[in-house]
Amino acid sequence: MNTQNDKMVMVMLEYLGIATGAASLLVALIFALYVKKRDPGSGKMVEISGYIRKGAMAFLNREYRSLAVYIVVVSILLYLASLIPVKGGGVSHYTALAFVTGAILSAVSGNIGMRIATLANVRTARAVEKDIQSGLKVAFSSGAVMGLSVVGMGLLGLSVIYIVFKNIDPQGLSNIMFGFGFGASSIALFARVGGGIYTKAADVGADLVGKIETGIPEDDPRNPAVIADNVGDNVGDVAGMGADLFESYVDSIIATMAIGIIFSAALSTQIVLLPLILASLGIISSFIGIGAVVFMRNRDPSKAMNTGVITSAVVMVILSFAVIYMNPTYDFTTINKIVPWYNIFVALIAGLAAGIVIGFSTEYYTSDKYKPTKEIAKASTTGAATNLITGMAIGMMSTVIPVLSISIAIIIAYILADLYGIAIAAVGMLSTLGMTLSMDTYGPVADNAAGIAEMAHLGEDVRARAEDLDAVGNTTAAIGKGFAIGSAALTALALFATYAQTLESMGANLTMDLANPAVTVGLFIGALMPFLFSALALIAVGKAAEDMVNEVRRQFKEIKGILEGKAKPDYEKCVDISTKAAIRKMVIPTILAIIVPVVVGVTPGLGAEAVGGVLAGSIASGFLLAIYMANAGGAWDNAKKYIEKGHFGGKGSEAHKAAVVGDTVGDPLKDTAGPSLNILIKLMSIVSLILAPLFVLL
Amino acid sequence: MNTQNDKMVMVMLEYLGIATGAASLLVALIFALYVKKRDPGSGKMVEISGYIRKGAMAFLNREYRSLAVYIVVVSILLYLASLIPVKGGGVSHYTALAFVTGAILSAVSGNIGMRIATLANVRTARAVEKDIQSGLKVAFSSGAVMGLSVVGMGLLGLSVIYIVFKNIDPQGLSNIMFGFGFGASSIALFARVGGGIYTKAADVGADLVGKIETGIPEDDPRNPAVIADNVGDNVGDVAGMGADLFESYVDSIIATMAIGIIFSAALSTQIVLLPLILASLGIISSFIGIGAVVFMRNRDPSKAMNTGVITSAVVMVILSFAVIYMNPTYDFTTINKIVPWYNIFVALIAGLAAGIVIGFSTEYYTSDKYKPTKEIAKASTTGAATNLITGMAIGMMSTVIPVLSISIAIIIAYILADLYGIAIAAVGMLSTLGMTLSMDTYGPVADNAAGIAEMAHLGEDVRARAEDLDAVGNTTAAIGKGFAIGSAALTALALFATYAQTLESMGANLTMDLANPAVTVGLFIGALMPFLFSALALIAVGKAAEDMVNEVRRQFKEIKGILEGKAKPDYEKCVDISTKAAIRKMVIPTILAIIVPVVVGVTPGLGAEAVGGVLAGSIASGFLLAIYMANAGGAWDNAKKYIEKGHFGGKGSEAHKAAVVGDTVGDPLKDTAGPSLNILIKLMSIVSLILAPLFVLL
Repeated sequence: MNTQNDKMVMVMLEYLGIATGAASLLVALIFALYVKKRDPGSGKMVEISGYIRKGAMAFLNREYRSLAVYIVVVSILLYLASLIPVKGGGVSHYTALAFVTGAILSAVSGNIGMRIATLANVRTARAVEKDIQSGLKVAFSSGAVMGLSVVGMGLLGLSVIYIVFKNIDPQGLSNIMFGFGFGASSIALFARVGGGIYTKAADVGADLVGKIETGIPEDDPRNPAVIADNVGDNVGDVAGMGADLFESYVDSIIATMAIGIIFSAALSTQIVLLPLILASLGIISSFIGIGAVVFMRNRDPSKAMNTGVITSAVVMVILSFAVIYMNPTYDFTTINKIVPWYNIFVALIAGLAAGIVIGFSTEYYTSDKYKPTKEIAKASTTGAATNLITGMAIGMMSTVIPVLSISIAIIIAYILADLYGIAIAAVGMLSTLGMTLSMDTYGPVADNAAGIAEMAHLGEDVRARAEDLDAVGNTTAAIGKGFAIGSAALTALALFATYAQTLESMGANLTMDLANPAVTVGLFIGALMPFLFSALALIAVGKAAEDMVNEVRRQFKEIKGILEGKAKPDYEKCVDISTKAAIRKMVIPTILAIIVPVVVGVTPGLGAEAVGGVLAGSIASGFLLAIYMANAGGAWDNAKKYIEKGHFGGKGSEAHKAAVVGDTVGDPLKDTAGPSLNILIKLMSIVSLILAPLFVLL
Repeated sequence: MNTQNDKMVMVMLEYLGIATGAASLLVALIFALYVKKRDPGSGKMVEISGYIRKGAMAFLNREYRSLAVYIVVVSILLYLASLIPVKGGGVSHYTALAFVTGAILSAVSGNIGMRIATLANVRTARAVEKDIQSGLKVAFSSGAVMGLSVVGMGLLGLSVIYIVFKNIDPQGLSNIMFGFGFGASSIALFARVGGGIYTKAADVGADLVGKIETGIPEDDPRNPAVIADNVGDNVGDVAGMGADLFESYVDSIIATMAIGIIFSAALSTQIVLLPLILASLGIISSFIGIGAVVFMRNRDPSKAMNTGVITSAVVMVILSFAVIYMNPTYDFTTINKIVPWYNIFVALIAGLAAGIVIGFSTEYYTSDKYKPTKEIAKASTTGAATNLITGMAIGMMSTVIPVLSISIAIIIAYILADLYGIAIAAVGMLSTLGMTLSMDTYGPVADNAAGIAEMAHLGEDVRARAEDLDAVGNTTAAIGKGFAIGSAALTALALFATYAQTLESMGANLTMDLANPAVTVGLFIGALMPFLFSALALIAVGKAAEDMVNEVRRQFKEIKGILEGKAKPDYEKCVDISTKAAIRKMVIPTILAIIVPVVVGVTPGLGAEAVGGVLAGSIASGFLLAIYMANAGGAWDNAKKYIEKGHFGGKGSEAHKAAVVGDTVGDPLKDTAGPSLNILIKLMSIVSLILAPLFVLL
């Protein structure tokens, strides 16, 4: 064996992540410039999109101020924690730094994505005036900026962290990387929870007064909350979704590397570098998938998306096969296992496959093409109560396939490649994120474009085309939500496996045995957290929506001529209400998510093993609740739309009124509470991982 | 030490359970005769109560037929399982026999309770014509029949099983007792799930056509579904609740005895007999509590109930103190622990206290005296959607206190007296069941009485008094539901502890380590079960309610003069629809609950450890969902009633309409899906316990 050569290859591989990450950012830049150069259209359109853009930026700026405080406080605490001496390596001194880096990179990619999205909405509306393909190209290009920024920043940042600190603090490298993940997690929390509260406070508030009380249509510029509602699409679905998946993406890589480090008792080994390489291949696959969407002309938007997703997945499978195959075996030195290449490859495929199955299952349960959503629509004919009961039942039923597919994936992955296999499965699921996130982000941009077309009173056929573009976005959004939940669960499981392995590697002889009531109590507390978190999110939306309703009522009363379209509503005031509510109501959930594992970890009688229970309990109950909420919400939404298409009496019928109730109830479930749980389960895991040495010590 | 004397004392103690159990049945008989002798009132009243009685018996008879098939099949399977040779004792040959015994005793006590309840409803209505105290006495006496039959049959049966089989098959004694618990569990499943589907199909169906479509009031005899609705109260709340608590009661005792047998490696020791003795003391305490309610005159019904509950609890604490104190220490021989008496006593108190806290918490979250329910009422002013979102949020929030109190109780109990302590805590919580179940059963009897008073057009003041009696029943029912859930969770945890201890005692060196993905997957599957079970229950109610709606519509159309009160509706047809639906829709949930742990247990790669995960996951997620559903449902119900009292516009206002939607949604959650989960988690645990030797073998 030529060790000299091998070493050189290894060093090159370490830098591969930097190269592909940078390439990804470069391509994102090209797409951004492309979007920016498009024609923003006429005066009215520019004016409206200006409000949306201003509102979105106002939210971001306010959020950054709170974030800055949070980042400073947490990084100080992390640094202080690193001063506690722990035999065999505690929290690294550099973890705080990595935390700040992770937070900044995630925030920057979210910022870029949202800036471009708020430029792209009006340009998409303008392009749709020509034809639907032009609109698709602008909206999807904007999505590609988000998708490629996220994977680019994630992989680039992580690679740099790895290369820098593997020499400075090799002992603490995993802990430092966990810090990076924690930073990403924190942004995700702010973006998902805050964004979720923002968007639904505006949406529910706007609907309650606008559609229900005053009888003016959706996206009517006379409604003062309409801009806040459109801002919400960007805040929740662009920035929130992006930060959520940024976190899953980097966490899955980090978990695999950390287990790799434990299993090889060394750095720079095959199994440590493999996730970085796979991520690089994923970026290349995403380039090809995105290219397929953008460069193939005259295609139905829905088919174009599917082609992109399938292309990138197929390319990824081929590339990863080639790369994994290069090494005939992979050494898990410390556990005395030598795993053949195909075991690793199949574990990766198991993750990819689980993601696809969950996506399909989501579509089945939420699309009006299939029985469940039709059943809800039918149940609406006997009133709102039966609509709701049916939706709840279907939402609960829809948990079966995702849970079983994740279960099967992790069992296969574990049998083939131990806990490392579970982490690799998560990497597999998330590898083509560049493409899938582009598709996800396309949705809210198209939604905004349709809103602008409506508000700017563009021609009927233009609006119809914009609506068609939006409709494609709704399907992709549902699948994207399912994918986000599935990948969050699998990532959390990978982190949990890392936690288990970390405890073992500390030689503390701890087992998370369920026969130990401390573990069982941990499990109960963990399972409780998603319920508590959801309750807080729902209450926050309810309160904020109430404020919004009162403000809109006030404007209708005090600003003369507003309903006749002669006076301009005070949009900013509504934006401000949503912003303030979102930021304020995030405080308690944030503190809870971070503090609960810490308290359990340091409480005598509970400790590190009980924290294991907390994590397992939160993942199990969080995963189930998240799917239930997302799918029930999605199905209610589409059942309403199905009725609006003319079934069961169509718009304005009693069935439609009942369906509107279901849709309104589902909104905060699917867009606020549900997505927050993705973050909760990952955040609690990563906090526990960072502090695990302290739990064991105490 | 005088061993001869000690032995005699032990033998006497073994027979104590038989004595108090028999005494309990005797007292129940006296109450039954008392109820039977009351005046059933006028012709119209007798006629209506006759329908209800006939409907209830029709349901029971149909249920018994299906039950008989089930019992025969399962006992044959159990016997076949006992033929599989397992080193160190597998399933006992007598387990099947104990299974049949447990099933029969539970069924008989439910049958007695329901027979008397359907006699008592009309007699209560009649007694209320005199004054409210008389009504209280009849209704509560009927409750006492149920309460005392359940504890009497339970303790008597279990004592006999213990005494008979400790000589015939000492090795298999625990397994035989688990069989007894399984029998009880099976009846509970039929009564709770079947009864739950029955009662809500009738209720929702009756409301949808009656109140909402036709605008005739609740309990109007012109509504063909009204008798089915009243039958449902008996089927669901009397027989269902009774069987649920029968199961918790005997399971908690069985779990403690089984752990006692493992810990003392012998039978007839202090720690094995203690739960039987405590149960006996509990019966005595219940006598005193029931006496306090019945014999103190001229009291407000609500205060009378509270006095009864508090009296029996205080007496129980004193008696158990005295008895536990008699032995200065308790020997856990096999784990080398000697536990002082006060540790056992405090563990018992921990369970009792947790039960009380959960009861109060339930009242706080569901009574219109407190903020949560008022908030829901207020949210109704902005429509059904906000009513629902608020109710969901409050229901989720209401899980915090119960989870924490159970967690604290089991941690304390475990620290003080190992896994035995957890089981003793469950015994403590359930010891005064004779009293609490009397109170629970009082509710549906009073509810029926109010219905009869309405249907028989009794005088306004009589109806008002009947309503007052019913209102007290609503509060006790809410507390009873909380208690049933809490005790089911604690009992399931005790069974889970027994499972853990059983695995260990088999020396199989199995640990339910969460780091083992098989356990994690088990946890996921377990957590999934309550969601799946709830979905099936909700779908069943939806479908059956639809059938009911169609039938009522048909009768309104085809039977001339029905709405003018000139023609009699076909009540039996509606009773039949509910009955058939209930029996048919029980099949899949029943099979699932039994088969899932078995499949996981025998699947290679999963096995006994994964079953541990299944149990822990199902308890955690089942407990949370059950509380969420029960409390959200209760709060919606009372928010509606709060509005009906004249708040936020009162009856007929928009807020009221919104609140009716919430109430209707909450009904199947709190009365069908939620209570079913109590059974699910216990049933899965007991099945796993019986088959544990086979899982380990395979």
